[in-house]
Amino acid sequence: MGEFELIDRYFKFSKTGNGLIVGVGDDCAIMDPTPGMQWVVSSDMLVEGRHFFADVDPFSLGQKSLAVNLSDLAACGAKPRGFTLSLALPTVEESWLEGFSKGLGEMSLRFDCPLVGGDTTKGPLCIGITVMGEVPSGQALLRSGAKAGDDLYVSGTLGEARAALLGIQGELNMSSELLEQLRPRLESPTPRVLLGQKLKGLASAAMDLSDGLSGDLAKMMKASGKRAQVQTDWIRDSRAMGAALQSFSFEERLNLVATGGDDYELLFSAPKSLRHAIDALSSEFQLPLTRVGEVMALDTQIDGLSSEKAINSSLVVFLDAKQQAMELKAQSFDHFS
Amino acid sequence: MGEFELIDRYFKFSKTGNGLIVGVGDDCAIMDPTPGMQWVVSSDMLVEGRHFFADVDPFSLGQKSLAVNLSDLAACGAKPRGFTLSLALPTVEESWLEGFSKGLGEMSLRFDCPLVGGDTTKGPLCIGITVMGEVPSGQALLRSGAKAGDDLYVSGTLGEARAALLGIQGELNMSSELLEQLRPRLESPTPRVLLGQKLKGLASAAMDLSDGLSGDLAKMMKASGKRAQVQTDWIRDSRAMGAALQSFSFEERLNLVATGGDDYELLFSAPKSLRHAIDALSSEFQLPLTRVGEVMALDTQIDGLSSEKAINSSLVVFLDAKQQAMELKAQSFDHFS
Repeated sequence: MGEFELIDRYFKFSKTGNGLIVGVGDDCAIMDPTPGMQWVVSSDMLVEGRHFFADVDPFSLGQKSLAVNLSDLAACGAKPRGFTLSLALPTVEESWLEGFSKGLGEMSLRFDCPLVGGDTTKGPLCIGITVMGEVPSGQALLRSGAKAGDDLYVSGTLGEARAALLGIQGELNMSSELLEQLRPRLESPTPRVLLGQKLKGLASAAMDLSDGLSGDLAKMMKASGKRAQVQTDWIRDSRAMGAALQSFSFEERLNLVATGGDDYELLFSAPKSLRHAIDALSSEFQLPLTRVGEVMALDTQIDGLSSEKAINSSLVVFLDAKQQAMELKAQSFDHFS
Repeated sequence: MGEFELIDRYFKFSKTGNGLIVGVGDDCAIMDPTPGMQWVVSSDMLVEGRHFFADVDPFSLGQKSLAVNLSDLAACGAKPRGFTLSLALPTVEESWLEGFSKGLGEMSLRFDCPLVGGDTTKGPLCIGITVMGEVPSGQALLRSGAKAGDDLYVSGTLGEARAALLGIQGELNMSSELLEQLRPRLESPTPRVLLGQKLKGLASAAMDLSDGLSGDLAKMMKASGKRAQVQTDWIRDSRAMGAALQSFSFEERLNLVATGGDDYELLFSAPKSLRHAIDALSSEFQLPLTRVGEVMALDTQIDGLSSEKAINSSLVVFLDAKQQAMELKAQSFDHFS
């Protein structure tokens, strides 16, 4: 099968219409912007052996490839408009392409985000997606908007993707039943696209959790010029996690939950006055929106730390139930360290 | 060096402003659309060993990576607005990153196309770029607009990139002086961005030549529902090519010029009544815009072919000086054949 037949067969699943004027097949895709909206763009690349295993289910991989990009749009409160796919493949395996394109198509349809263009080439398996969306002018949620005194929230439950990874790698003992329960959190996460859009006007800052709460929260605080205090015993983990981590100490568990990465949940800050509104959103989406801490001015005295130590400490302080500062082992996922 | 330091050091060369509201560093980039304009998007992926040699000059590679994407915008007549870069790197080599990012930055500055976001990860060297631009609503040049009776044009000269490749691979004897003269056509092509914008309102259809005239023209004819007749002796090759191909027959030369690929020139159709306007553009840009043939209705009798043979023949017929149909060996570059 040649390059162009491959595109025709597997990657022409989106129709024009709804502001998509030209889709797959010309030199460029063409889209009509909605008046009063800004364009929002994000790109992610997934590499075999780094972001996924060679034997991962291609349907799930198709879903996840788009999901991790949609998660970035969600973090900005943007509505998806379309995506491009650049795909390097070592060989043309029809069953793999069938599964991958179906998973991609399912996610595309679910979030009304058509495939508008891209590129295919021979090479080590590598999936590059650029997702485009729009947001009312000036209303995008940024990392830089957190204010001193704001609450800090995370959506959903953290650490499950990492626990599934450890289960697959045999580094964490768990029943195969439990592993199958956790696996979708690693292999086909759900981007919080609608939640992100609803957080506009409520959240003061937002980002998606891809590298772990600890490192990602530090990035948000750096962008906002603030410091964060996290109440570790407020962080929610799921029942499934509880079962998997029975033999873990609280510290070990926290390390996994706060530094595991691949969560694709939203981290956001919001004024204390909006607690009722956030609770209402949680009910609407039937999704935990858990208050995990507070934003503080950079020069604030931190509970449990001397002022000198506080000033020299990191931008994020994790406190145990006794309000003592804790040290996490891993800080954040970094692709080059 | 970690992932985030790497981005800070090498990939924050574009400033916000001019409608770029948020650039590298948040979950998404945010841009203001210009009222009355449509969004134009294209993605290309370059893989080591497939699109470039491991030892290619990283500055040129940076230039080319963006140039091949800008060439797609040019083909639509769009003005560049920004691009994202997804980069998989086997190791962090500072001298390579320095050269690559400088080449990329040079091309970015030259065409006023800022780097707005992206992703870096560890993996086999792979460069994914998505370029965004805009075009006045309804005025984008498409592949599908060619009309029967239109002239067919190509910009610049064809086949030089392929000749340089053959020279580097030792498959074509040429002096090192000549190779150095041809090498930039392969390693740092110039996208015809301004020409593309000026062709709006003149050209009826356009596309960029990346896979070779023969295959790309067939794609344009397929999209337009037309057939093309190319006068092979009208195709221009450069003096440098002439020197490189002294020992070649006309057919061998034509094969290289029409199927070599990597030209990044524009192919376009225009009504015969606009010949003066096209000539004027050629003078303005000091760039050959060479009339190479004509667009015909699908059911037209083709010179030199019986009507039965014509109907069964391909969408593109190459004629020699005696108006006899010629057969080319390679049809087009295909990444999977």
